[in-house]
Amino acid sequence: MVDDTPVELYFEDIAPGARYDSGTATVTEESIARFDLEFGLPEADGSRDQRRSAASSYVASITMRLLVESGFRPAGGIQGSGIDDLRWPNPVRAGDVLRISSEVLETRRSRSRPEKGIVRVRTTTLNDRNAPVQTMTAHVLVPCRASDAA
Amino acid sequence: MVDDTPVELYFEDIAPGARYDSGTATVTEESIARFDLEFGLPEADGSRDQRRSAASSYVASITMRLLVESGFRPAGGIQGSGIDDLRWPNPVRAGDVLRISSEVLETRRSRSRPEKGIVRVRTTTLNDRNAPVQTMTAHVLVPCRASDAA
Repeated sequence: MVDDTPVELYFEDIAPGARYDSGTATVTEESIARFDLEFGLPEADGSRDQRRSAASSYVASITMRLLVESGFRPAGGIQGSGIDDLRWPNPVRAGDVLRISSEVLETRRSRSRPEKGIVRVRTTTLNDRNAPVQTMTAHVLVPCRASDAA
Repeated sequence: MVDDTPVELYFEDIAPGARYDSGTATVTEESIARFDLEFGLPEADGSRDQRRSAASSYVASITMRLLVESGFRPAGGIQGSGIDDLRWPNPVRAGDVLRISSEVLETRRSRSRPEKGIVRVRTTTLNDRNAPVQTMTAHVLVPCRASDAA
């Protein structure tokens, strides 16, 4: 079912410990090959054996899609100011069904931009065997509801 | 001119302070829109105004392409074990011509995998006005030439 009326989140709506899940995305042999071709990546390299696994930048791009479609919907869209600690602990292969689970680690008002808050969110991308295939910690700028600080 | 005989680098060939440059990639309105469509990204959000800028995951994917094609060519391909400190200090827009410049920060033998070394490399993606549009520090696994440790 498509959610036509997503709830937009303001800084005040987001608390440490909050969790957001996503739908799923299925990776295919064709989609792995298409990404490799478009971004000029070699067909096989030291990290990607005969049974070709997905490029890590493809896994990151799928994760962004799942994140945008998840319950974590800051008003105005996801405005990332950076990512720390991006890892790919397990390979992604054709047939894998991916989903994400995000947890808010920390929230704080921005000092330089008082109309915004900064939310530190840890996003884990999992396959259908529940193994993590990507982990990252992102810093996201989220608008504050209150206009008194604007 | 296509370089048909790239030099493959082993751990022993890579020293702190070494720099590697790349060719260029031109971003177009069509390529920005195609990536957004493929990865289900909203057409405009808080971080991407009317003159649509490229998705950060698209900038990261272009960077991976430039990196793979650059002089930094570990034997067996680029096998990343992770990325720290990924930032997008300036937007990328249609017409921008991107290139990368990488600098080796640190090299060390892997303790858990003695046939490999770990190279910490800082890659800055620049536009044609020399402004940084992405910065990242990656940890790359590079095979050692000497087989005595294998």
